[in-house]
Amino acid sequence: MILLNGKETAAAVKKEIAAKVNEMVAAGERPPHLVAVLVGDNGASKTYVANKEKACAEVGFKSTLKTFPDTISEQELLDEIDKLNRDDDVDGFIIQLPLPKHIDENKVINAVSPMKDVDGFHPVNVGRMALGEDAFLPATPYGILLLLEHYGIETSGKHCVILGRSNIVGRPVANLLSRKAYPGDCTVTMCNSRTKDIASFTRNADIIVAALGVPEFLKGDMVKDGAVVIDVGITRVPADNPKGYRIAGDVEFDSVAPKCSYITPVPGGVGPMTIISLMKNTFKARELKMAKK
Amino acid sequence: MILLNGKETAAAVKKEIAAKVNEMVAAGERPPHLVAVLVGDNGASKTYVANKEKACAEVGFKSTLKTFPDTISEQELLDEIDKLNRDDDVDGFIIQLPLPKHIDENKVINAVSPMKDVDGFHPVNVGRMALGEDAFLPATPYGILLLLEHYGIETSGKHCVILGRSNIVGRPVANLLSRKAYPGDCTVTMCNSRTKDIASFTRNADIIVAALGVPEFLKGDMVKDGAVVIDVGITRVPADNPKGYRIAGDVEFDSVAPKCSYITPVPGGVGPMTIISLMKNTFKARELKMAKK
Repeated sequence: MILLNGKETAAAVKKEIAAKVNEMVAAGERPPHLVAVLVGDNGASKTYVANKEKACAEVGFKSTLKTFPDTISEQELLDEIDKLNRDDDVDGFIIQLPLPKHIDENKVINAVSPMKDVDGFHPVNVGRMALGEDAFLPATPYGILLLLEHYGIETSGKHCVILGRSNIVGRPVANLLSRKAYPGDCTVTMCNSRTKDIASFTRNADIIVAALGVPEFLKGDMVKDGAVVIDVGITRVPADNPKGYRIAGDVEFDSVAPKCSYITPVPGGVGPMTIISLMKNTFKARELKMAKK
Repeated sequence: MILLNGKETAAAVKKEIAAKVNEMVAAGERPPHLVAVLVGDNGASKTYVANKEKACAEVGFKSTLKTFPDTISEQELLDEIDKLNRDDDVDGFIIQLPLPKHIDENKVINAVSPMKDVDGFHPVNVGRMALGEDAFLPATPYGILLLLEHYGIETSGKHCVILGRSNIVGRPVANLLSRKAYPGDCTVTMCNSRTKDIASFTRNADIIVAALGVPEFLKGDMVKDGAVVIDVGITRVPADNPKGYRIAGDVEFDSVAPKCSYITPVPGGVGPMTIISLMKNTFKARELKMAKK
């Protein structure tokens, strides 16, 4: 059994990106520039954005944080987005979610130029991804692809069972892993809460992506020998430690891991990869803009 | 075994649409208006477009055919599309494919306003569909949904196996039938040419959608008792008749049908439903425009 180490993989991919940024700058180009838009005073959002800024610094990107009070009106925010769309110095930008309740998140996402939508949330990017065209891929699915790729895991002709059909994980992973590409060319089964006898599907899976948000749902007796297991779950569960909780995945690691060829730990598996997707997308946005000149 | 009669279903849905158009006109509104753009002199394309015009007449839509010689430049065609996008009298329009080789089809599809894209080809519509948002659905997948709905076939919690992952059938059907909706809420498996032992999947399927383009691929011994079988295949195969060919589906009807609860014939199953999707989308485009006023 081999651990799919997200921390190590993320560090390796960061190194690759940093080297490319160095080349870019040595060739007289400015480095990629990511802008993060933060509305209001949500502690978790602040942490996420700070981590993104830190990652930018590590790979040599310029990053800018734009903060607005949660009293900003929807129209004012849309105006700010319009400015960012037209700012030639900005390659990509993200609107940290959630937004205050008086702002329509869908409207805001749709206002971001698809060419700068490095979160891959805009319908144009979702559609291009579903069509197998070049697109900015969403963070978690892209992180999973990068992890499979980093470890050289064979996917062609494999049966991949995905637990969960969310727009941010299950569905895009299904669309990506069924593409004629590597990683891809899988037979993909998407299970959901209505699925009868989920174990009958997971027991036939070569690759399992667990993205249900149900702590330790997948047990050892639901997995066949040699399976590759990707655990996307991160749920806080009560624990007898100073914090009073621990982070649990959707996989019961102790019973599942011994049967696996590869498995992601939680934490330290998929988690660290999501920020790498953002870095890859921002670099790509910069390259696309350079190619357009 | 019940035949899913596409001709009858199409006629019934046309009647419903015609009644709504009558109401619309009685309320002093103009009827929906569909424009078909035909480039060049392709016989099959002419037939398709003529059928679409005929269907428009039957449901009370206004329809206009715009023909251009195959010498039209890409830019000239894009200019025509721009005119149609801005023409307030046009609710929806389609560009009949294929286009001459000197014209980039993708560029043309992307130029159509997503609000008038009644073929559901624009990435915004594909993306909105994948996100489970309101969208213009592509013809064949939408036709399949309408057929399942017309016969009141239960889909929730059913295992649907889709043979084929094309952008026009397999993939959108997978995205639609896995949605939290009716028809939908299925566990969906998407098989492709790399799938090992396809029969092991189809034998476990409650619903099979065959969209491989391989004549009579699905045989009786690959189907479980009571399955619902939707045959999207239409291939000409040599036959001992005056035409010299017959139309074959992807399903070996004689061996599969006796095991089914429901099955589509070929021809007369999914085929007649595709044009209904276009009528439904055009009606919806008109309604959306009216709501915007």
